[in-house]
Amino acid sequence: MKIAILPGDGIGPEIIEQAVNVLNALGEKFEMETAVVGGAGYAAHGHPLPDATLKLAQEADAILFGAVGDYQYDALERSLRPEQAILGLRKKLGLFANLRPAILYPELAGASTLKPEVVSGLDILIIRELTGDIYFGQPRGVRTAPDGAFKGEREGFDTMRYAETEIRRIAHVAFQTAQKRDKRLTSVDKANVLETFQFWRDIVTDVHKEYPDVALEHMYVDNAAMQLVRAPKKFDVIVTGNMFGDILSDAAAMLTGSIGMLPSASLDANNKGLYEPSHGSAPDIAGKGIANPLATILSAAMMLRYSLNKAEQADRIETAVKKVLGQGLRTTDIHESGTTKVSTSEMGQAVLKAL
Amino acid sequence: MKIAILPGDGIGPEIIEQAVNVLNALGEKFEMETAVVGGAGYAAHGHPLPDATLKLAQEADAILFGAVGDYQYDALERSLRPEQAILGLRKKLGLFANLRPAILYPELAGASTLKPEVVSGLDILIIRELTGDIYFGQPRGVRTAPDGAFKGEREGFDTMRYAETEIRRIAHVAFQTAQKRDKRLTSVDKANVLETFQFWRDIVTDVHKEYPDVALEHMYVDNAAMQLVRAPKKFDVIVTGNMFGDILSDAAAMLTGSIGMLPSASLDANNKGLYEPSHGSAPDIAGKGIANPLATILSAAMMLRYSLNKAEQADRIETAVKKVLGQGLRTTDIHESGTTKVSTSEMGQAVLKAL
Ligand SMILES: CC(C)[C@H](C(=O)O)[C@@H](O)C(=O)O
Ligand SMILES: CC(C)[C@H](C(=O)O)[C@@H](O)C(=O)O
Repeated sequence: MKIAILPGDGIGPEIIEQAVNVLNALGEKFEMETAVVGGAGYAAHGHPLPDATLKLAQEADAILFGAVGDYQYDALERSLRPEQAILGLRKKLGLFANLRPAILYPELAGASTLKPEVVSGLDILIIRELTGDIYFGQPRGVRTAPDGAFKGEREGFDTMRYAETEIRRIAHVAFQTAQKRDKRLTSVDKANVLETFQFWRDIVTDVHKEYPDVALEHMYVDNAAMQLVRAPKKFDVIVTGNMFGDILSDAAAMLTGSIGMLPSASLDANNKGLYEPSHGSAPDIAGKGIANPLATILSAAMMLRYSLNKAEQADRIETAVKKVLGQGLRTTDIHESGTTKVSTSEMGQAVLKAL
Repeated sequence: MKIAILPGDGIGPEIIEQAVNVLNALGEKFEMETAVVGGAGYAAHGHPLPDATLKLAQEADAILFGAVGDYQYDALERSLRPEQAILGLRKKLGLFANLRPAILYPELAGASTLKPEVVSGLDILIIRELTGDIYFGQPRGVRTAPDGAFKGEREGFDTMRYAETEIRRIAHVAFQTAQKRDKRLTSVDKANVLETFQFWRDIVTDVHKEYPDVALEHMYVDNAAMQLVRAPKKFDVIVTGNMFGDILSDAAAMLTGSIGMLPSASLDANNKGLYEPSHGSAPDIAGKGIANPLATILSAAMMLRYSLNKAEQADRIETAVKKVLGQGLRTTDIHESGTTKVSTSEMGQAVLKAL
């Protein structure tokens, strides 16, 4: 089994190192190959997603991704900026199903800005469609407005689009995932305003017929944003489009106050996937050895479970992570008084030991 | 001065009644005329925004709006549903600037799901563009996909569009509003993905040249959703597009835990405006006399300030509302032990007395 390792920028290399150590300690035979991506890809080859990196990602059975983005690339034109690598990988590998758990570990309840009773024990899963919607819809650009009240003026425009197949396949992933959890699915849309999402609602309702054991609820995106703040524990699985999912999954992650703990998976139709922490490249703390490697280590666990068919090894890693939390070890981002502050590598070592 | 009174559905009539009482008690000469809107408009005239209602709204100097929507209208085709009234009024009256304060009254800090230290004293203002973006952009619909990977299949689609004039005018409102507050403006976009919002960022940056005294910061919408949960008090004024504003303003309102307290204004280029509570029609509690009328009463205050040039009267109302809160009076939605639970009309009466 071949794993592509794409550390990227900022804290990416440091946290990936710890996750690779954990993978190496499992006693499995993985072939791991590393390639540059994001700003590092641009620096080395003039493009955030160099051909060789894309090729490696295509050949691999799974991809472990760090994070991309750093100050010195901010001024580049958009097509060369680090985040294009991630958009390119999603689209070119057909990684349409993004799974983002928002879990609050009991030991970390204090880190949340929400009251403990509102978030303790939080365990929700946001499934975001990742290759369609306004992220990729053509046409798009800046043009002279062809019609409307501002005809003849310059305007920026984008196209939101969802085809039936795109909605059906993410709906199937969502219902099947809900079946393995609490069997409750909330489909988030804006059917009262958008044609795309009235269509989305119609298709999701149709797919629901194949999953009568799952309770389906439709919710407008503005209301979903409110309910996430008001009573997040009422959700089980949420499925939504690319744009709404971008916003809601980040809001949900932040509810936990410990985004340094949250992994993510982006899967294609055959469960090949890209795995990355939900947090970013944090260039302000890069190289200081204080980044939290646990989201990346937990991403490696998701990889074992979803793409490499090694659920037991995934369990081992997740148990080890819980153990080090129980031991009171904390990186800076989740440190509070009464716990022991550790560095990135110390945290990685502790997980290895707990394995 | 003529005020159009549009009570609407659900709790709309009850809360509007209290706000009208307050307006009547000010000792000013207002001509007030009432018309049906939303479900009530459909029930009476077969359309959520009957011609007579639109005409009244057009002739008036300001509009006081309750809320629309009720269960029995849910199954209507979209063009006849209650919320079309509000979309129609915004577009037809050119109400492009939506001002939504998210304020947490110190007395109500306990109502928030967030920790008191994170939200107490919260006072931010979200300015949402209200007549453009994907809400109204043509073309839109369900069609056979003309191109792309799903060519030939059925798809739903919408168009996000912002013309230069639309961005400039909302940016001017935002900078001018920030000048009257803490002089800090956050423009929320998704310039890393959307052409519309790269264009938005460029224009906002250009308008900024006219307001050198205001500190401008650009933030991606996913990050803004996170920062609202993490550290909402760091914001002063936020400006964003119609779709992102829909989501963020509701999230921000919910941070306070007391959405029954939050007014809103939707203004045209001449400060004519529509004023409405930030909460909805709450059909589940309609007719029970327990709805909180304060958001509507505070909306009337905003109306006096922005459209009717009666800032002193607006101050009087706001002071009166603070006074009744100080007296410990609470409707059900904001009630906690140690305070006095009052009905909709008792709360209205208390404000009248405090005036
Ligand atoms: C970097 C950006 C293009 C990306 C997105 O918007 O999808 C990021 O926010 C994410 O959620 O992975
Ligand atoms: C009812 C709906 C069309 C409306 C919107 O999306 O603008 C509402 O959510 C609002 O924010 O006023």
